[in-house]
Amino acid sequence: MKNTHEKFMSAAIALARKGEGSVSPNPLVGAVIVKKGAIIGRGWHKASGLPHAEIEALKDCERKGKSPHGATMYVNLEPCARDHAEKRTPPCCDSIIKSGIAEVFIGCEDPNPKVGKGAEVLGKNGIKVKKGILKDRCRELNEMFFKNVKTGLPFVILKLSASADGKIATRTGNSKWIGNISQRKMAHMLRKKCDAVLVGSETVRKDNPSLDVRLVKAPRQPVRIVADTGLSVSPEAKMFEEKGAIVATGTDAKKEKIKKLEKKGVEILRVKKNSRGKISMRDLMKKLSVNGIKSVLIEGGGKIAASALKEKIVDKMIFFYSPVIIGGDGTDMVSGMETALVKNAKKLIFKKTTMKDGTIVVEAKPEF
Amino acid sequence: MKNTHEKFMSAAIALARKGEGSVSPNPLVGAVIVKKGAIIGRGWHKASGLPHAEIEALKDCERKGKSPHGATMYVNLEPCARDHAEKRTPPCCDSIIKSGIAEVFIGCEDPNPKVGKGAEVLGKNGIKVKKGILKDRCRELNEMFFKNVKTGLPFVILKLSASADGKIATRTGNSKWIGNISQRKMAHMLRKKCDAVLVGSETVRKDNPSLDVRLVKAPRQPVRIVADTGLSVSPEAKMFEEKGAIVATGTDAKKEKIKKLEKKGVEILRVKKNSRGKISMRDLMKKLSVNGIKSVLIEGGGKIAASALKEKIVDKMIFFYSPVIIGGDGTDMVSGMETALVKNAKKLIFKKTTMKDGTIVVEAKPEF
Repeated sequence: MKNTHEKFMSAAIALARKGEGSVSPNPLVGAVIVKKGAIIGRGWHKASGLPHAEIEALKDCERKGKSPHGATMYVNLEPCARDHAEKRTPPCCDSIIKSGIAEVFIGCEDPNPKVGKGAEVLGKNGIKVKKGILKDRCRELNEMFFKNVKTGLPFVILKLSASADGKIATRTGNSKWIGNISQRKMAHMLRKKCDAVLVGSETVRKDNPSLDVRLVKAPRQPVRIVADTGLSVSPEAKMFEEKGAIVATGTDAKKEKIKKLEKKGVEILRVKKNSRGKISMRDLMKKLSVNGIKSVLIEGGGKIAASALKEKIVDKMIFFYSPVIIGGDGTDMVSGMETALVKNAKKLIFKKTTMKDGTIVVEAKPEF
Repeated sequence: MKNTHEKFMSAAIALARKGEGSVSPNPLVGAVIVKKGAIIGRGWHKASGLPHAEIEALKDCERKGKSPHGATMYVNLEPCARDHAEKRTPPCCDSIIKSGIAEVFIGCEDPNPKVGKGAEVLGKNGIKVKKGILKDRCRELNEMFFKNVKTGLPFVILKLSASADGKIATRTGNSKWIGNISQRKMAHMLRKKCDAVLVGSETVRKDNPSLDVRLVKAPRQPVRIVADTGLSVSPEAKMFEEKGAIVATGTDAKKEKIKKLEKKGVEILRVKKNSRGKISMRDLMKKLSVNGIKSVLIEGGGKIAASALKEKIVDKMIFFYSPVIIGGDGTDMVSGMETALVKNAKKLIFKKTTMKDGTIVVEAKPEF
């Protein structure tokens, strides 16, 4: 029986993933309704402001002329039990109870206190509830959302693409293309998953990336941010060509340059400086969160990677190692960390490694 | 039926591996003799000068009172058919034919022309022969031997142990311990597989390694070699404490220093210099091969790694990435390669990646 439940919860997770890139700041949720071992309704949360997965699944039953009465629902996140100020849809528990559903299997609990205790509400209304089916996978699915709810800060992915010896450019600054097209597609998949993409000013000056999602389909483009303490980037940079770009700069930035950027439609975000006189990554994250940005992909270069690690804002690291050796005269994937002893170096926990079309992909988590 | 053959060939390969670290310059060979679906004899080549695997398997039948008459033999390498000058044991084909064995399954062909065409000889004597069972695994098993026979040069493994950002020491030179004990055991497994371990003089000066096999059992210790153009290493270095150390140096090395080292029992190998005025890795490999060294593990540091890659002597690369970020002010795993454009950088082919006790292990092959 356990495998049957896991199979249906997997189906709910797969549906939830369809909302990637469009549900933020909401969680990814999918639901299936099962009767006599067959799925009679499927739903997922499509975008913030649109109906929740549970409602979509019930609607799907209706559309197909199948009654959910006495059926079982599988949903990766605890259904919401009450309205709150920011919520734009009625609570799912009401609809589930009305539908006559007999059993609800929940992947993991909703950490958001505002939505009430769905499992409890369902139970009190005579519905059999079981929590924790594929709990770890369900938690991982919404790791961004959980971080947001817990800390109020965006979930930060630090992507480090380098040669096998950890270099992001040759001694002459050449960096195109260390990664192959398949790796660039993976990078665009990451961009699609995040509300914003962040780079350092050197990356803009040297590589002039457009930072949009082109190589995979995306429901919306991420916000493009450059951390630029001295306001050194050109208003003609590619990342400013479309609307939705932010320059994060110091509070003492020159007004003339600011005007030029604002004329291009670029938003200027004034951020505190850290002890090294650079943009404080921690303050930047706080300000982005206030601006509704709940997940940030840091794409490099080495200086911003070092700042992010030093200021402990990184939740996940993705390494892409390409099958090439650049050599010690190239540019480092992470700039100076001023580490004297190995035992004091920034520690990680490697989560997994895979090989994809010639690239080694490593997922890790910084230990803080 | 295919799976049965592969199962028995796997058993032969597993037996062959027991000779790791003691058969060089011979290949690793294992053999099983099968009758009515059961193994009645097992053998492997234990060390150069001792009987071949096929003979050992036949002896094992005899010991157990089982007749090999009408049985099937599985052997990972083509049995030898004739004697030659350096060979110290009679040809296996004679014994196989005499034994009444009906069928011989061979993993892969022996590239050594001196040993004759075993498969042909067996066939002419009425024995059914089939080649190519688990051919790729059998070839990989003896990749060192195949390289030796084909080129006359040692098989070279370049091991690169670094932080996740490709550093082998902090800015202060501290390197102990970037890798954990499990990783150091894997490194000792590699030492055990090779006839010699090679490092650069900077590694000796900075880390003073003993370069022996301690963390795993080994039938013999590898020869310890330091490439030291300017003869700068101290005669008191740990790697000289036991016999079996070589200093590879330029032909213009100072006699006084040489005497001191020779007094410690160190062998001095005079090697040509390359265009950069450093020890020619290619000449060193040639001279080591003449000295009976058929496999070399290069353990670092970054300068010798760069030299080895530039001079195209590397057959296999093993990367150990540790879960730590040292930062750009640390020491590079590969020193300057003078690469201007990415497209001209040293290309690799990643073979596989695994995670072992917190270390990411990547196997690669340089593309030359």
